[in-house]
Parts: sequence; C-alpha cells; structure tokens
Amino acid sequence: MSAQQRLNAVKQHLTPEQERANAVDPVNSMNEERAKASFNIRDLTHLLDGGKGPSELRERMMQEIERDPLFAMHDIHDISKETLRERTMEKFRSMIHHLQNESVDTFKKRMEVISLIDPGFWTRFGVHYGLFVGALQSNASPGQLSYWFEKGALSLSGMVGCFAMTEIGHGSNVPGLETTATFDEASDQFIIHTPTLTATKWWIGGAAHSATHASVFAQLIVKGKRYGTKVFVVPLRDPKTYNLLPGVNIGDIGKKMGRDGIDNGWIQFTNVRIPRGYMLQKHTKVSRSGEVQEPKLQQLTYGALLQGRVAMVVDSGNVSKKALTIAVRYAAVRRQFANSKANGIETKLLDYPIHQRRLMPLLAQAFAMHFTGSEMNAMYNNMMTRLDSASPDDPDMAEVIEMLKETHATSAGLKAFCTWNCLNTIEQCRQSCGGHGYSAYTGLAGMYNDFAVQCTWEGDNTILALQSGRYLISSYREAIAGKKLSPGVGYLNNLNTLIGKRCGAAKVEDVVTPEIIIEGWQVVCANVVKNAALEFEECLKAGLDTDDAYEQCSQSRLYAARLHSYGYLFRRFAEGVSKVEGDLKPILMDVCMLYGLYTVEENAGAFLQYEYFTPKQIEYIRAQTNVLCKAVRDQAIPLVDSFNLSDYVVNSPLGRRDGNVYVHYFDHVKRQNPQGEHPYFNRLIKPMLERDIEGGDYEDEEAGLEDDEE
Amino acid sequence: MSAQQRLNAVKQHLTPEQERANAVDPVNSMNEERAKASFNIRDLTHLLDGGKGPSELRERMMQEIERDPLFAMHDIHDISKETLRERTMEKFRSMIHHLQNESVDTFKKRMEVISLIDPGFWTRFGVHYGLFVGALQSNASPGQLSYWFEKGALSLSGMVGCFAMTEIGHGSNVPGLETTATFDEASDQFIIHTPTLTATKWWIGGAAHSATHASVFAQLIVKGKRYGTKVFVVPLRDPKTYNLLPGVNIGDIGKKMGRDGIDNGWIQFTNVRIPRGYMLQKHTKVSRSGEVQEPKLQQLTYGALLQGRVAMVVDSGNVSKKALTIAVRYAAVRRQFANSKANGIETKLLDYPIHQRRLMPLLAQAFAMHFTGSEMNAMYNNMMTRLDSASPDDPDMAEVIEMLKETHATSAGLKAFCTWNCLNTIEQCRQSCGGHGYSAYTGLAGMYNDFAVQCTWEGDNTILALQSGRYLISSYREAIAGKKLSPGVGYLNNLNTLIGKRCGAAKVEDVVTPEIIIEGWQVVCANVVKNAALEFEECLKAGLDTDDAYEQCSQSRLYAARLHSYGYLFRRFAEGVSKVEGDLKPILMDVCMLYGLYTVEENAGAFLQYEYFTPKQIEYIRAQTNVLCKAVRDQAIPLVDSFNLSDYVVNSPLGRRDGNVYVHYFDHVKRQNPQGEHPYFNRLIKPMLERDIEGGDYEDEEAGLEDDEE
Repeated sequence: MSAQQRLNAVKQHLTPEQERANAVDPVNSMNEERAKASFNIRDLTHLLDGGKGPSELRERMMQEIERDPLFAMHDIHDISKETLRERTMEKFRSMIHHLQNESVDTFKKRMEVISLIDPGFWTRFGVHYGLFVGALQSNASPGQLSYWFEKGALSLSGMVGCFAMTEIGHGSNVPGLETTATFDEASDQFIIHTPTLTATKWWIGGAAHSATHASVFAQLIVKGKRYGTKVFVVPLRDPKTYNLLPGVNIGDIGKKMGRDGIDNGWIQFTNVRIPRGYMLQKHTKVSRSGEVQEPKLQQLTYGALLQGRVAMVVDSGNVSKKALTIAVRYAAVRRQFANSKANGIETKLLDYPIHQRRLMPLLAQAFAMHFTGSEMNAMYNNMMTRLDSASPDDPDMAEVIEMLKETHATSAGLKAFCTWNCLNTIEQCRQSCGGHGYSAYTGLAGMYNDFAVQCTWEGDNTILALQSGRYLISSYREAIAGKKLSPGVGYLNNLNTLIGKRCGAAKVEDVVTPEIIIEGWQVVCANVVKNAALEFEECLKAGLDTDDAYEQCSQSRLYAARLHSYGYLFRRFAEGVSKVEGDLKPILMDVCMLYGLYTVEENAGAFLQYEYFTPKQIEYIRAQTNVLCKAVRDQAIPLVDSFNLSDYVVNSPLGRRDGNVYVHYFDHVKRQNPQGEHPYFNRLIKPMLERDIEGGDYEDEEAGLEDDEE
Repeated sequence: MSAQQRLNAVKQHLTPEQERANAVDPVNSMNEERAKASFNIRDLTHLLDGGKGPSELRERMMQEIERDPLFAMHDIHDISKETLRERTMEKFRSMIHHLQNESVDTFKKRMEVISLIDPGFWTRFGVHYGLFVGALQSNASPGQLSYWFEKGALSLSGMVGCFAMTEIGHGSNVPGLETTATFDEASDQFIIHTPTLTATKWWIGGAAHSATHASVFAQLIVKGKRYGTKVFVVPLRDPKTYNLLPGVNIGDIGKKMGRDGIDNGWIQFTNVRIPRGYMLQKHTKVSRSGEVQEPKLQQLTYGALLQGRVAMVVDSGNVSKKALTIAVRYAAVRRQFANSKANGIETKLLDYPIHQRRLMPLLAQAFAMHFTGSEMNAMYNNMMTRLDSASPDDPDMAEVIEMLKETHATSAGLKAFCTWNCLNTIEQCRQSCGGHGYSAYTGLAGMYNDFAVQCTWEGDNTILALQSGRYLISSYREAIAGKKLSPGVGYLNNLNTLIGKRCGAAKVEDVVTPEIIIEGWQVVCANVVKNAALEFEECLKAGLDTDDAYEQCSQSRLYAARLHSYGYLFRRFAEGVSKVEGDLKPILMDVCMLYGLYTVEENAGAFLQYEYFTPKQIEYIRAQTNVLCKAVRDQAIPLVDSFNLSDYVVNSPLGRRDGNVYVHYFDHVKRQNPQGEHPYFNRLIKPMLERDIEGGDYEDEEAGLEDDEE
C-alpha cells in the first residue's frame, strides 16, 4: 500500500467532524499549498542567491547563528532596553572571532544574515566597521590609515569608534554643521568645540556606551578662515577606565522607536585639543604653519556614501521577503467565514480575491527590489573599481565622474522609494494578519519599528528623491543640448518619439507585455520629467536663482523621481527575468507582469494624463491585475519558500514553515508570560472591589451642617 | 517708549552674529508665525469645540489631569510594561471618584481628553465601561441589567468586567466562534467550554490582571441544537482572592505593538458551569425547560457596535490634530540649508514648498475628519433616539431600519478610511521631523504604535470597507429599481445625469469651487459604484451565488468604498464650512478647497478615467494645490494653535507651544537618561580592548605539530 493509499484508507474511516478538522488543520493546509509548486523551489533559491554555493553558505550561516546562544532571539520582545543593550555588546565582542577567522566574503554574508535577524546589533557593529572605519578609509591619508589601523581600529583592540556627524540642530545639511575645529598654530593642535546647544552632536550611534573614539565632522577654521566641514578623530574616553577625557561630555539619548540595541548618544566638546595629525587629510591638508591645501575633485569623497544606499535597496528587498514570508504563510492557513457550500469549512485568507490583492503585488514588488538591488550592486562595484584605479588627471576621469553621477542619482531615488516600499510592505503584512499582527511576537510590529529609520538615515528620503528629480531635470536639459545620456536615463534621448506616443497595441488584450509596460513607463516618465524641467525653466525666467527654482518645482521633481524609480524597478525586473530559462521562466514572468500592471494601475492618473493608455485599456489592466494576483497566489507558498529563510530567521509563530501557527503562537505566549502571582491585586484591586460604596467618598456628606433652606 | 520701540532699540545694538542668532532663535521663529494669524484663534477653537462652554470644560479637564500625579506622562516611554500596567490600574481605580461625582457629559469629556493623553489607560477603562457594561446594556433583559448593576457592574464594587469575544482562531467571523455554551437541563445551568486550541479566547483586554467577570460570546447549544453566538456572563475569579474559579485558565498575552497599559489575556474554559440566568436574554431567551425563543429583528443588536466606529472617526480627527501640532510647530522653527541670499540664515522647513506639500494637505484632512466626525455623531445619536423609542411593530420601524443601515454602512467606510488616514498622518508627521521623529520622546513613534490597532479592532478596516462597498452596490440596485435612497448615497438616484457628465467650467480657473469638486466626486463615485454593480451582476449571471459574487468583485467594492468615503468627507467638510460666517470663513474655505483639490489629485486616475476633468484641468488642479498649500502654510501655526492642546497633552518637546524645541528636547533627554556608571564596561568592553591580539584566538596554533609538507 502506498503512502497515498494508506492516507485514503485512513480518511475513509473518519467521521464528518474529523474530516472537517483535517481539512482546516493548518499543517495540512500548508502542505496543500506547497504541493502546488509549478517549479523547483530550490532552483529559484539558487537563482535568487546567485548560485548553489551562496545558498549553501547562507544556510550554514543561518544554522551557525541559530546555534550561538548569544543570538537567542525568542525573548527579544520581552527584555528591557538595558538587557538588550548589554546583550548586543556581548554579540559585538563575539564577532571579533569571526572577523579574524573568516574570509571577507564569508563575513559579509554573516553580516547580511544577521541584519535580517537582529538589525539593532547589525547597526551597532556597523557603526564601528561601516561608519568609523569607513570614515578613515575615505578621509585618511595612507599614512594616517596605517596609524589608526595599527592603533587598533581594525582589530578593535584599544579603541572602538563612532561617527559623530549629525547635531541636534543639523541633520541633512552637513555643510551647515556648527561644531568647530580651530587650528592652534602655537601648539600644533586643533581645538574641537561645541559652540551652541544646537551644535550638540546627536544620534551618535555607539557614543553612549561603546565608543572610545569618534570621527567628528566639524568646521575647519585656520587663521580665522573657515574651510567647510572636515573629519577629525577625537578620543572621547580613556580606554582603561572609560572615564570621559577633559572637555568631553556625553549622554545617552535614550528610548527610540526601534533598534534599541544600539546606544545612540549626544556629545558636547568644550575646547578639546587634538594633535594636528588627527585631522584626516586625504583630501584637504593643513600644514604645520597653517597652510591649507584643498582637493581638486570634491565629488570623489562621496563615493563611499553610496555603498550604504545601495545596501539599503538590497535590504528593502530582504526585509520585504521576511515580512511576506510571515503574512503569506499565515494567509495560507488562517481561515475565516464559511461559504454556504463548504460544509462549514472556512475559507483560507489566501483564497479571498481581496487578500490576494493585498499581498500578491507586494510579493511581486519584493522580487522587483531583489533584481534591482543585485543590479545596483554590480553598478556600484563597477563604478568603484573604475574610481579607485583612475587618477584625477586620467583622460577617462570624465566618464568615471559621469558614472558616479548616475550611480549617485539612481541610488538616491531607489533608496528613497525602496525603503518607503518596504516600510509599507511591513505595515500591510502586519495589517493583513488581523489582530495577531498587533502582537509583538508576530514580529511585524518590531520589524516596522526597526526598519522605519531607513527612510531617514543616510539621506532623508524626501531629500534624496528630490536629488534624483534634480538629476532628471539636468539630464533632460543635457539631452535637449544633444548629449548622449547614461543608460538609466537614456530614454530622455528619445524625447521626440516618446512625448505624445500612445500605446500601439492593436487589441486591448495585447497590452500585457513587458515591452509595452516598459515603453509606457518611458512615455510617462519622459512627460513628467519634461514638465518638471519646463516648470524649472519658467522659474528661472521669472528671475529665481537655480536653487530657488529647484525648490519651487520640488513637487514636480518628487513626482518625476517617483515615476522614474517605478519605471526603473520594472525594467530591471523585466530584464532580469528575460535572462532566466526553463521551469522558472513562466512563474517569474507572471510575477514580473503582476508588478508591471500593479504599478501602472497605482499610477493610472499619469498614464491617462499623458494618454499612453486609454480608459478602456486601464480598465483591462485593472482586470488583468486581478487575474495575475490569482495566478501568483497559486504559487505564493512556493515563492516565499524560495526565499529560504529559516524559522529562526523569520522568528514569528505566524510565519512558521510547517504552518502549525496556533500551536507555536500559544506556546510562545505561554513561555514568555508564565502564569504567576498577581502583581498588585492586594494593593490596588482588592480595596476597590471591597470598598464601602453606600456613603460615597465621604461618610457623612452633611458633616453636621443644618441647612436653613430645607 | 513702547515695547516694539524698545525691541528695535535693542536690535540696533546687535552685532551681525547676534542678529543672525536672533533670527534663527526658535522662540522668535514661533512668535513670528503666530503673529501671522488672519483670524481670531480663540473663535476657531470655540467653533471646533462646539462653543465657549465646551472649550472651557476641555481646558479645565486638561489642567485637572495634568495636575493629577497619577497621570504623570513625562516618563511614559521609559518605564517597563510591568510598571505601566500597575500605574494604569491605579489610574483606573482613581476614575471611580470622578465617575461618581460628575455629570455624564463632564465625565465623557474627561474620557475624551484622556484618550488623547493615554490611549492605553483609556482602553483598559473602556473595556469595562464600554465593552462589558455595553454588552450588558445591549444584551441583558431589564431584570438582568438591574441584577448586574446591583451586583456592582456600574460602581466597580465586587466586580470588574472584560469582553471575551475573539478567539485565537476567530476574529471577524463572530458567528464562527467555537466556544460552546451547552444547556444542561438537569442542573438548569450552561456549561461553557473551549473545545479546541483555536477556540481559546484571545486578545481579551483586562483578562490578565483586571477582570473578575467576562461577557463571553459562545455558541448556544440546547438539546443538541445550535442557535448561534450569544452572550453569557461568566465569573472568572474569586473577587476576594483573585484565584481562578474551577475550570477557568487564564494567561497574559504579553507584549504588543502599543497600548501596553492594558493587560490583554487569553482564557480557556473547561466545562465551567453558570446559572441559566447568566445568559443575557434581551433578544434570545432560553426557558427552564429548554425552549428557545429567538428575536424578531436580529439587526437591532448591532446598534451599540456602531458607537465605537463613530467614536473612531472622531478620534482619527483628534489624534491627527495632535500629530500635526507636533510636526507643524517643529517645521516652524527647524531650519535647514542656507539660501545664498539669506546671510547664512537657514530656511524654515515650513517655507519649503515640498514640506508644505507633506503637511498642509494632512492638516486639511484633519479638519475634514473633524467636521465629518461631528456630523456622524449627530447622525448616530438621532438614529439611536429613534431606535430606542421605536418598537418592532411601529409603523415607522422600516424607516428606522433604513437609518440603521445607512449609519452602519457609512460608519463602516468612514471608520476604515479615517483610521487609515490618521495612521498615515502620524507616520508622515513622524518622517517630516527627520531623525528626531525616531526618538521615542518626540511622541510620534508611540502614537503610531498606539493608534495602529484602530485599523483592526471593532471591525477590520478591509472588511468594513468591503461592507461599505456592498451597501453601495445594493443601493445602486435599489436606485435602479426606483427607490429613493437616504442622503449619504442620494447621488445614486441621479445616475442618468451623473454618468458621462463632464465638468462644466467654462475656463480652467473656474474648477476650484466646492460645487464642482462635490459634483466631480459624485460623477466619479456614480461611475465606480456602477462598475462594481455591473461586475457583481456579471458574476451572478456566471452562476455564482450572492456571497461568491460579492467576493469576486471585492477589489471594485473596495475602490468604490474608498472613493465614496473621500467624496463624503469632502462634502461634509464643505457643508460644515458653508455654515460658518465672519473672519473664520476665508481661512476655512482655503483649508477646505485644499482638501478637495488634494483628494482629486490623489485620485486623478479616476477623474481622468471617467473624463470628469480633462488632463489640462488636472494639471491646473495640481498647480492650484501648490498655491493652496502655500496659503494654508501662512496660517499653519494659528490653525494648529486653534486645536488648543496643552503642552502636557501634546507631550512632545518638538511640539512645544513656545517653540523652544531644542532646550526642551535636550532637558527631557537628560532628565530621562541621567549620566551614570557604565553598566558593563568592565565585564565586556575592557577585556576586549585589552586583549592580546598577537596570537589570535589560540596562543600557539601549531600546537606542537610538525608539518611534513613544509
């Protein structure tokens, strides 16, 4: 007898009640979904990870971290900020072992996996290695770099660094920082000083309880002249005692929305003296006699900034995958409302067209961000290789600068819209879990709180989106002037054919192809970029200077950047899918087209405004979006399975791979909240319940008064 | 010498540096804004509050609560869940004094104010008075009601109640709850039982550490027959000892996204016996011999449910006002980036067109929700008065049922879209504060976490929006059949004139009137409702039953409900403003038109799809939205001042009335995070910094091995 036959035999002996219980059993429901896979899940995992090797490395990492007692995550929602902070430092310390014993690539993979598990830890560790060491690499001369590395910056011996850029009164406007670094020629020292309350360094990760040194951004002042913001290494504390050094005042900035594992702090400097050599002098140099030598190409210092942005596009895809793993798995087993024909068996959430509409486009978007993130990574690495090997006098430096500009603008827009997309995905996933989405243990609430900061740090999203819009306007003007643009904005070289172009599909059914959606996005983007550019030029004609003119048309810039980014995401996705062969092709094509139609539908106003699609075509696209939601829904569990996140990484009873959500959820709640003595019954509740209510608050309200009026 | 002259005299003696410091001083910046008021702020406060008396009462409440030491809120972000829970119970107990000593209206005002200050407390108190007592009032016969009131349900002596409806496996589908209440004729008792894990009562507010009794929703089973979900009062604990009663098992569900002041719990019943009289029998009755008498009009039991929804529309307006008070005040004093012409003085955030775009439409929306909330309240009270005085056999009962249906559907849609709007407003306000929005002390992060549950409880927003859409479809079908509809959907009686209608404005400039926007919304809504209805009918023709047909067209239903709700909000706002006279009229008109244009712009796809506006008109509307953002920006501080929320209620250093944000923020951070000993330097950091790194992890890696290969 085969397993299936045995199962059928068992089934035949079930009562109707047992049969119904079987049908709604969450584990059975999950297996049912998994069995629908139209493709080899493992193949898709390899495709997403970039091969079998990387998949296996990631699996090894997930297992290793899960087994590390320091990385226990089950109680993360119930420990105090103080415990969390201490535990985070303990993890920090334990990382040194891996850092010293594994290859850079392996360690990077470890960090990528950890960023999904414990973003607070990842930030605390990243402040030293990403920001502090990064500031050294970008700003120190070769000799200075060796000095700080020898002093222990890389090995974390003798020093832990933090990155003191923002001030309480100054965030995005780095040139406007108030902290001063005044050269004192007599002593050959810089004097670091916080002149006002608003100059207090603020949000400095690691300052409160980790760092001994800071890379401080301050206004360089030499012989009374200001040279703008430069970077200085300032020792904060004695590494032997952790006592503050003279003139340094530091405090904890306390409770945040999320990422409480990192100890952000504030710093005030009162005439703190550092040797001249502690100014990082790769670009600007100050000599012993106070001569200041400024660099030729200011832009080159921005290269390193971009890495964080590119990483956030990738992270937006990864965090979306985690959120969707929870919401989609829960929707596959959660049942609600019985259909009259269904013998009392309630319907799976995933079978409701409206639930498909809530989650499937977001699932498609996660894939779009994945493919785009990979592409951005390659673009960034290519650009940095060229940048590192080029010298300012190289003949192809102009081309490198052009690449830097494109990477800068593209990563700015994508960072903004991808982090917004991801934050929205988390919240939509949370709401789609109904009441349980409000439990901390579901994981989505904390994910929201942890992720939210990504919309603000390393460039506020609105400001970045405006930068991207500014680049689009200047690209438009260059295109008009006859310049050949770089690929991302290349469509602006075809303005004549794009403006006024309508969809050429003969029949309404023909609009659902990648080519048409790509063309549609190009037409719409060409129009909105043109409008923004014309608005900008009108502002110039009206007498505004360039900056004011850009401010004045900021809404149009933002709109152009938004549509450009959506069009970009779709094209990257479509191009990525076009390279795929075999079994994976049909499902990825469905996911890709769902993303395309959904973005058109969401921005139908623009497609109608510029008349690329007719109202009838838009109606058809709306209907086809429903059809594709249904198609992707059938593969939804295999698709989230392909993300290959272990139960430990997902860390949510609702997102359990086996589908046994209620058992895991109840167990988790009981383990985290053991039943015990009532903490305040005797003090607060008993006296209330047993109070004498007859006389109200006062025993005798007359208090002996004989009322004459009565 | 007048004050102004003295000020000028002082100014003349300032150095340029002092003058600049003066110009950017946040208090000066705030005063500057306040001086721009084009209307009497106090008059607007009275208009919003409903008169001078209510304003003064609210002010008295704000002051009284601020002075109550139990309601200290400065440390709310830094105390543990356990402390918060205990403190919340202490407030709970202290409320009894006010409840017994003040009028119902005064007490209601107190609760309204408290709900803005401490939503967690408000929920915990509301579980007893709103839900438990409400369940008695809706479901108990007159005799039963007296019994429970005499037993202490109103005075909170001898008992505290909770409301045990949802189960871990069942939320929105109340008829599908699994808990059973089986009549045992022999003992004249009901046996309350939790048959499965998924039947565990879940999310029960007050169950963990407050309640002695629960109103339990369970399947009534008499003589083997099921009669659907009814309500039973089940004693949970001995009020003397707080020990669980036999068969009752209760636990804490632990950490949530927000509102941690309330002790949500889970409950399992194992054959718990209660007297027959503990079933609430206002509607369905069970006699001593097990005869079941069912009510004539099932709908009447839903009336009480609506109150919560209406309250949430009002609350969405109020919470939005609080969030906007913080974000707008901060934007009036925060400065960022210096204009080349501005002598180094940075620009106020509020002066950036893009920042106006981020906040002004949301400010307008808060007003729209305010006016609509007041209207909904009146509609609800009117309906309930009629309902309470009507008996099932009254001739005008049909009309009352019609009113109930309209209130039900309208409040469903508005609850959904207003709570979504408010949640979005909070998040947009938070992001608009830049990095500081991520600090817990800014208040917006906690506000988001506290408010988020409103999108789920008392009717999941998606399900409510779909109900509203279903009502729109059935109203459409009734209109086609010739029935005169109630006012909210009355436009569906004019389908012939609305479908296909285009904006009749002669010039593009003429589109900015309330009449045109109202008509535009009616045209668009008539179209989308018609489309949804046609889609529904096609599903019926294709052989689906009514429920399946509704599911199939759910995306169109949701879309129709969304647009209908936006159109409804605008009309209520415009009608409210049309009644205002005098100085307040112009500014309210600006705010109202901004809301109208913004909603059109946001839904431009629909207005273009149904060709009410041309692309050119939409372009004009986009441009005019910018113009109105600027106009409302000039009055932004007076407008948020008119909300009249005291600094204590706002509880955010960034939202301080005096504008002195950095001083208050820094003070708050220092007070909440006093500098002290490092908690784990010696244990974790010192050994890391001082470790011997020469030998790596192992002192002698060769360990005596003689390697042959070498």
